[in-house]
This record gives sequence, structure tokens and C-alpha cells, in this order.
Amino acid sequence: MDYQKFLDTINQEMNYRDVTGKVASYIPELAKVDPRKFGMHLHCGEQQNYSFGDSEENFSIQSISKVFALAMAMEIMGEDLWDRVHVEPSGDPFNSLTQLEYENGIPRNPFINAGALVISDILVDQLDDPKQELLDLVRKLTDDDSIDFDKEVYKSERSTGYRNIAMVNYMKALGNIKCDVEPIVDFYFHLCSLAMSCKNLSHAFMIFANRGKILATDEEILTPLQTKRINALMQTCGFYDEAGEFSFEVGLPGKSGVGGGIVAIHPSKYSVAVWSPILNKKGNSELGMKALERLTSLTGLSVF
Amino acid sequence: MDYQKFLDTINQEMNYRDVTGKVASYIPELAKVDPRKFGMHLHCGEQQNYSFGDSEENFSIQSISKVFALAMAMEIMGEDLWDRVHVEPSGDPFNSLTQLEYENGIPRNPFINAGALVISDILVDQLDDPKQELLDLVRKLTDDDSIDFDKEVYKSERSTGYRNIAMVNYMKALGNIKCDVEPIVDFYFHLCSLAMSCKNLSHAFMIFANRGKILATDEEILTPLQTKRINALMQTCGFYDEAGEFSFEVGLPGKSGVGGGIVAIHPSKYSVAVWSPILNKKGNSELGMKALERLTSLTGLSVF
Amino acid sequence: MDYQKFLDTINQEMNYRDVTGKVASYIPELAKVDPRKFGMHLHCGEQQNYSFGDSEENFSIQSISKVFALAMAMEIMGEDLWDRVHVEPSGDPFNSLTQLEYENGIPRNPFINAGALVISDILVDQLDDPKQELLDLVRKLTDDDSIDFDKEVYKSERSTGYRNIAMVNYMKALGNIKCDVEPIVDFYFHLCSLAMSCKNLSHAFMIFANRGKILATDEEILTPLQTKRINALMQTCGFYDEAGEFSFEVGLPGKSGVGGGIVAIHPSKYSVAVWSPILNKKGNSELGMKALERLTSLTGLSVF
Amino acid sequence: MDYQKFLDTINQEMNYRDVTGKVASYIPELAKVDPRKFGMHLHCGEQQNYSFGDSEENFSIQSISKVFALAMAMEIMGEDLWDRVHVEPSGDPFNSLTQLEYENGIPRNPFINAGALVISDILVDQLDDPKQELLDLVRKLTDDDSIDFDKEVYKSERSTGYRNIAMVNYMKALGNIKCDVEPIVDFYFHLCSLAMSCKNLSHAFMIFANRGKILATDEEILTPLQTKRINALMQTCGFYDEAGEFSFEVGLPGKSGVGGGIVAIHPSKYSVAVWSPILNKKGNSELGMKALERLTSLTGLSVF
Repeated sequence: MDYQKFLDTINQEMNYRDVTGKVASYIPELAKVDPRKFGMHLHCGEQQNYSFGDSEENFSIQSISKVFALAMAMEIMGEDLWDRVHVEPSGDPFNSLTQLEYENGIPRNPFINAGALVISDILVDQLDDPKQELLDLVRKLTDDDSIDFDKEVYKSERSTGYRNIAMVNYMKALGNIKCDVEPIVDFYFHLCSLAMSCKNLSHAFMIFANRGKILATDEEILTPLQTKRINALMQTCGFYDEAGEFSFEVGLPGKSGVGGGIVAIHPSKYSVAVWSPILNKKGNSELGMKALERLTSLTGLSVF
Repeated sequence: MDYQKFLDTINQEMNYRDVTGKVASYIPELAKVDPRKFGMHLHCGEQQNYSFGDSEENFSIQSISKVFALAMAMEIMGEDLWDRVHVEPSGDPFNSLTQLEYENGIPRNPFINAGALVISDILVDQLDDPKQELLDLVRKLTDDDSIDFDKEVYKSERSTGYRNIAMVNYMKALGNIKCDVEPIVDFYFHLCSLAMSCKNLSHAFMIFANRGKILATDEEILTPLQTKRINALMQTCGFYDEAGEFSFEVGLPGKSGVGGGIVAIHPSKYSVAVWSPILNKKGNSELGMKALERLTSLTGLSVF
Repeated sequence: MDYQKFLDTINQEMNYRDVTGKVASYIPELAKVDPRKFGMHLHCGEQQNYSFGDSEENFSIQSISKVFALAMAMEIMGEDLWDRVHVEPSGDPFNSLTQLEYENGIPRNPFINAGALVISDILVDQLDDPKQELLDLVRKLTDDDSIDFDKEVYKSERSTGYRNIAMVNYMKALGNIKCDVEPIVDFYFHLCSLAMSCKNLSHAFMIFANRGKILATDEEILTPLQTKRINALMQTCGFYDEAGEFSFEVGLPGKSGVGGGIVAIHPSKYSVAVWSPILNKKGNSELGMKALERLTSLTGLSVF
Repeated sequence: MDYQKFLDTINQEMNYRDVTGKVASYIPELAKVDPRKFGMHLHCGEQQNYSFGDSEENFSIQSISKVFALAMAMEIMGEDLWDRVHVEPSGDPFNSLTQLEYENGIPRNPFINAGALVISDILVDQLDDPKQELLDLVRKLTDDDSIDFDKEVYKSERSTGYRNIAMVNYMKALGNIKCDVEPIVDFYFHLCSLAMSCKNLSHAFMIFANRGKILATDEEILTPLQTKRINALMQTCGFYDEAGEFSFEVGLPGKSGVGGGIVAIHPSKYSVAVWSPILNKKGNSELGMKALERLTSLTGLSVF
């Protein structure tokens, strides 16, 4: 397939001025981003990279990084992980404390904040230096050692993240948090502050399209079964309260972040990342959703 | 692929005595069913039918019929349908009134009871004889004119269905029901009482694997886009509170019913139905889930 | 005390044009009422009646009648009644289905709609002609045989009362309703449609200030203990989500209705009713609340 | 009245071995208390003190101290206080985060934990040394300078109080907390750890029966209106989810704590405190409830 032609078509069709949403503003660092930023990168083989626009510029990947944390926790915990966090869609705004109250402190899935906080607890409990190991993993997946946390984003998240701190304390009260609160939220807010580009993201997520192996080196990071589990989770839970819509419009497993990034994979075919900071009402990149919808329409490839 | 060999393997592996769940008991007619019943039918072409066990015996398909009702409503309403019912997973027990209270009477998707009741309202409002048209559709899809409602099941549902009647009244109070309550619940409980076999179901669902067309006649029942929407909905919402697990274990769009039936489709490849009345804790056929998991493992085919 | 002087003062001070709320509009019959209507009647002995304004004009007493229904049910059921309905404040909007879902179909108290529907079920189950017996009771308490249901209000309630019908069905699903739905809602909507005047109401409620006995005849309708229970319930649950505020502002047990009526009693002293149709945000008569607050301030009498 | 005779009767009638509840066990310090402890003290004038049993032994007054904190905050904030905390019963378990989620971080009343945490925020914000000022107030009200925090109880509360810390963080996220979390919870857990006797408590609460003035010195601590507000709040919200029952059984404004203490007042008449550590299912002292019910029955005095 001539993916570059498809991407060029998408680039021409999309126009950020037609977009009706807004850039995320809950922390100043996200509000500062130029709303016109737009980039996309599709990766489907070692020498097969297609892109346009701001595809090599770093942005705050926010919740997308929850997939990396989940991959780390699955490796450590195996099937025991699912006693601590469930695998079902949440059907509620992504921060809901009510659901935790109903379900005894077990988050519905690893991609809602409560779930990622339990994952953070596990990593803090089991690893000597979880932040470094997270960086090591992401750098290895992308073969890019410059990837790092954005300190300003981290500080901003920390100074406003009372709802997440509330959730950790609440789950600790309910018995589903082992470590002290401080190192957990320190790790969690660092996790949210990872800065990467579309190019990086599409390379990193290629393991999910490649049965758990790094394409370039053939190193197995996850088993095929673990990879399938993560893909299924991205399909049903990767888009806050818009997973059903994304499943229909795009039809690929993926994960979005409030920084305006979305990454999706087509198993055995490609990994693709897109970035545009303007968000729709459900908190997903408005242009990003459209761009991916166009991609699966133009290529005729979706899982459905 | 030698599908018959795969089915034979599955038949040998599964043993209902290892199963820990129970037959549905909320109405006497379901409780009476022999728990040892087990059948499966895979359909992938006009002369390509593979099966074992009780695959031609009729059972109460229950919620599986919600997919037929949805198909009828999509044809009538087009995109306007989505103002009356949303397309996101529910994340709550399948009967929850709380969610309706939160979301102003708009059900989260057409496969929870509230959603199917709104669909019923639409069909009652728009069709002269919705029950007959439902039968006509199902008979056409299966080329089997003997398919009918099970009157005993219907009566039993009616006499105990206060929760569903509560939901219709509640949504009427919230402005999302147009017709009188009586004809809506009459249609709804008939819908739940459809009796079909695995063979019938796999034939009927073949349209969802065939871009909306009946395979034998090439007649288009749904557009490709409508078909994609239904498949996406089955993927994310087809299994009560176990959609995430099914998505992982089986990786195909599908729909289950408390009668113990499950039907799933692999787009462009096949349609498969399985029946075993014993349900797991989440209300899905325990053996049915395992059989489908084995099928995608043996064939190596899932959407992930 | 010179109650007439106090009432005259209140009449002079109150001015409906300073009021910011609105007349109830959920049924046309209530919306039609002249918002300037204002009357008050205080009764503290056979020849001791004090009043002003529209105190002898009938209005729709709405939820105030739930106290009569409760009195009838307490007489029939004794202490067993409290297995079917609790005695605690609801802390939620007065129609909430969520609370029923949490608490297995047992309403929190007899004055929320769900509670009054359970009371209605009991009366329909136990009495030959509950509507007539309700009228008989109210006529005996007031010595006024003209008191009756307002047929227009009844019809209007019936034609819009889907939420209440939803609640009966829901509680029937949860096992806390015995009779058929139809006679229950027929009784309930009649109950809501009772038309009485301030004079009637203050006379009828005198039993709650007189340890359960009709003042004029000394006939015991309720035991002192039953009377105490009802008074305690009016104190904590009589004003939808404003019981705490009324308890502070007025400091007397009482009950309000969305028709704009409020009746309150001072144990061993008096019974007082006030009517002004304009409601505050919480559904209680705005002028009525103020008038009663002035009464307890001017007399220096409250329970606190 | 011969109060001593009534108390002696109560002392004889009550027998802790008939009690079916359990001592609070959520912190070790409370679990250690001898379940047979039982004392009562009624105060109705400078030389009028009546008592029995362990009435001079200190115990952990727990939530009873929320009334002192409320009195302090009312003095500081006046009517503005009610923008930060409401005055209605909660109708939910006393720790519910769900209700905060519904109502935008405004607790329903000052006696649920969330409400007392907002009160704590106000005191920490407005006072130089809130813990000392709390002690000063309580010592002045009782004329007993030995009253102090129980350090062991404080430490135990701190080390297990994740749910309360969650609530402060959550309300901070919702904009209803001004100060840092640490000093708020430090004050709050100290507040919970106050140790007092029945004698102390009945003396301290005499201001609520005496229109806001200390009986011995005639010093006004609260205005009559503030006193009325607190009494109304104790009446409707003072007993977790048993305010309605207490209102009926006892019919006096009061406040309980999970340490097994209850204090109640009869306006213009007396203040009474009782202590027995065994709690009923709703978290109130089982014998304490019974003792107060007997008191109002024997004296014939309740507000109803």
C-alpha cells in the first residue's frame, strides 16, 4: 500500500480551523501548546516510515504512557495482576470515585486513572527504580535515548493532582494499595509527563502489532498472549468514554491522551501515531480521531 | 481451513461436568432446560456448514435478538437513532436504573435492556406490525420459515418483567419513550422469546460477516457502514459486563443471551453460534465462552 | 397568647411580590393556580381558631396527604410496617431510584414517593375500599364531609406519573410490592389529589398535637407512641431536601406539598396550616416557610 | 424532678450482657476499651448534677467533638459558613464519597466526616493555633483544665485514616478546601482524639440547652440563633444514619461518637451524657440509645 499517499491525502483534508473543541487547560503546560500543531507517523517495517507535519516534535503523551506501565506490570505480575485491576470498560467519567466505592477499590481497567494508580503501586513495590526502568523500556522500544520526562508538566500535575491523590488514599483505605502514597503519586505524575513524538510513539507501539517483539531486534518484550490482552484492553477501554465510538469509526485498538496524541495499531500490519492538541468533548484529539478514521477508510483496513 | 476438525476437537475437549456455573433461573422456562445441552455451528459459505451436538435444536436466544431489533431500527432511523441511544459500554450491571438517572434517560447502548426498550419503542412507533416484521427478517436471513416466538417463554417474561416495565416508565418520564408502555413491553418480551438453533443463528448473523448482505441471495439488508457499526457495538457491548474479557479471550464481535447461546462473527470469514445453558457469574454461557476461545486459538484467527 | 395578632402581623409582613420562586408546573392543574393566593389558619382548641386570607379555600394538598396514609398504615400494620419502609431522611431528590437500587427496594421513609407507594400497596392490600376509608378518616378528623379528591388533578397526575409507576414496578421487581400495579397507582394518585383548605388541614393535624386524639371528641385515632413516631418523621423527613433548614428556621414537625401548602404542629399547643402556591428551589412554599418562621419567632415557641 | 431516681432506675434496668453489638475496632485504641464500661451524667443547674457508673472516666468522644468545631467555625464565619457546608441529613453511610461527587464537593452537613473536614480547613485557615483554641474552648465550657487529646488515639487515627485524607484531597480538587492537606488532617485527627467524661460532656453541652451561654458564668459563647441552628443540626444529623430513629426514640437533639458516647440536650432543661462502648449496627452506643430513651420516657419530656 502507498501509505505516504494516504497520509498526504489526510494532511490535505484536515484543517484545524474546522475543529470545534479546545486544548486541554487543566494544567498550564498543556494550555500553552500551539493548537495548530498537527503531525502523523505510520510505521510498518524497519525502513517503512511514513509521516507528515509535526511528527517529530515531542508532546506530552499523558495517558498513552499507561500502556507502557501496564506492559511492565504484566511482565512482573503475570495473571495475578487481574486480582488488583479488572479488564472491563468503565462506563463512567474517567476519574470516578463512585465506581471504586461500588467495587471495593478494584478499578475497572488499567487505563482509568484509578487503574493506572494501582499499576503504579505495583511498579513502586516491585522495582528498585521504577522511573528509570520506565525510561529504559521506552528508550529501548524506540531506540531513542533522548526520551525523558517533561519536568514542567510533572510539577504542574503534582501541584493540581488532588483527585488522583484522593483516589490512592481511598484505594489504600479499601486495601488495594500497598506502598506509601508519596512514591506512588511521584511515579504516576512522572508517568503522565513523558514527552514523545508521533515517530517515537508509532515505533514504541509496534510491539503490539508484532506479537510482543521489537521489530528491529526481534527481542520479545511481551508474550503473544500478553500482547493480545493489551490490544483487547486498548480496543475496549483506550478512549475514556469514547471507546465505542472509536471502535466504530476507526476499528483499531489504540490509546489516546489529553495532550492530543493518539496511537493505534493494526495487528501484523502497522502502528500509527497522530497528534493535534484540540480535544473533543470526551477528551480525545478531534483531528486525531478524524485522521485515523480516514486512514482506515482509505486503506480499507479495520478489524471489523 | 478444516473447520470440522476444529469443531470436533472442541466437542471432545469440552465437558459440561467441569463447569461451575448454573442455568438461568429467573423464569421457569429457562430453568427447565437440560444443562447438558451443547451444540455449535459454524457457517462460512453456502455449502460450508460445520457443526456438532445439539446444533439444530431450538433454544431461547434471549438478548441475542437485540441485534436483530437494532438492525431494524438502524434501517428506519439512520443516524438519528444515536440521539435516542448511545454507543458506549455500560460498565454496570445490565439492568441499572442509576445510569439512566445520571444520563437523562438515554441508555448507554442498544444491548443493555434500557437500550433495547428504546429500540422497541422506535419499532412500535414506526412499523405496522413490528412482531411480524421481526419474524419476517429473521426468517429471510435464515431461509427458515419455522422460526417463531416461544409463547411459554413470552408469558413467563411478561409475568416477572417488572424491572423492564419500570425502565420504560422511567424513560417515558425522562422523555425518551414515545409510545404507550403496553405495546412496547409486549414487543420487547416477544423479542426476548425468539427460539432459534445454533444453525439458524450462524446463518442469520452471516450478514454481519458479509458487509450487510445475505450470502445466498446477495440481498443487501444493511449498508457496509451500518454493519461496521453493529460489529463495533457487539465487540464493545455484546457481553454484559464481560465484553472486555470476551474481547481478549475470543477477540471477535459477538452477542450472548442468558439462554446460554453465543454467536460471534469473523468479518469476511465466518459466523459461528454455540449453545450450552450453564452460565458463568456474569451471565454468559460458560462452555460457550470456552468453545469460542478454543476456536480462535485453534484457527489462529482473532481480530487482534 | 394572642395568636390572631401574630397572624395579622405575619399577613402584613408577607408580600408575594418579594418572592422569587415559581408555582409548580409539572401538571397543568397546579400551574393554573393564582400565585397571589395566601392564607393561614391556626387551631389550638375547640373555640380557638385564628386565620387570615384564603384560609378556607381548597387547594391541592399533594404530599401532605402522605401523613394521613401513613397514619392508616400504622394502625393496620403496627411495628411490622418498618420492615417495608425505613424511618431515616433520604438525602436525595425526592424521586430517586438510585437509593432504591442501593437499599434493595426498601424506601428510606414514608414521605418520599417510593415510601408512600409502599404505604399505598399496604392499604390496597388490607382495605376493601382504601379511597373511601381515606376520605372517611379525613372527614372525621375535620368534621367536614365535603372533603374530596380533585378529579382534574387526579387525571393530570395519572397521565404524567410515569416516574411513580416506574418506582412501583421497580419495587415489585425487588419484592417490596404485593398488589398489582394498577390499583396501587390509582390509590396513590387519588391520595395526591386530595383538596383541602388551611382550616381543614390545621383541624385534621390537631391529632398530632394532641397525642393521637381528636380534640373535639376525645376519640383516639393513634396511640401516643404512634403519634410521636409520626411527629419525629415529620421533623426529620417532612420537607423533601429541606428538612434540616425547616428544622432550624421553624423548629416544628410538619409536612409540605408542592401545591404550596405546609402544615406544622406544636405538640400540646397548636396545629397550623399555611398556603401560598409559589415554591422555592427545593419545592416548598416560599411564603409558607417564611410565615411559619415568623410564627415561631413571634411566639418564641419552637421545639429547640 | 428527681433525676437521680430516674438515673438509678436506668442503671438498674440496663445490662450490657443483653446487648448484641460490638465495640468499635477500626483502630486498636478503641478496641481495647472494656465493653462493660457504663456511665451517665445529667446536668441541669450549677449544683444539680446526677450520675451513675463510670461517669467521671474519660473516653474517646470521637465525632461528638465535631459539635465543638462547628461552634468555633460559626463564630468565625457567621452565615458565610453555609456556602461551604450544607445543613441537610445525608441519607448515606457517613463516609460516602459518592455524595460529594454528586454535590460538587459541598458536604451535606457539618457532622459527616467530609463536613467536619471542611470545618477543620476553616479553623486551620483562620486561627493561629486551632488545636490550642479547641482545648481552650472545651476547658472553659467544662471548667476542667485537664481535658486533652489522647495521643495514642491520635496516632492510631492518623495511621489508618486514608479515607478521610482521600476526602480532603477530593474536596480540594473540587475547590472546597483552601489550606494544605497536612495541617487539616492533623487538626481533624486531633479533634477526633479528644478524651472527656460523661460529666465533662454534659457540662460542656449545657450551652446548647442554655441559649448559647455558659450556665455558671453567664458568658455568651454563641448567640441564641447559632445555638438553635446547632440544635436543629443535632436533631436531624447527629446520629449517622440513625437520626430518624433517635428523633423518635429519644426526641432530643444530640450527638454520638463511635467511642460509645452520646450527649443530648433538652432546651432550657438539661444536658445529659451517657457512655457504653458497645455499638449497634449503625455505629451508635446500643446501651446509650436505650438509656436516653428510658430517660425521656421516665421524665415524659421530649421535644415531641
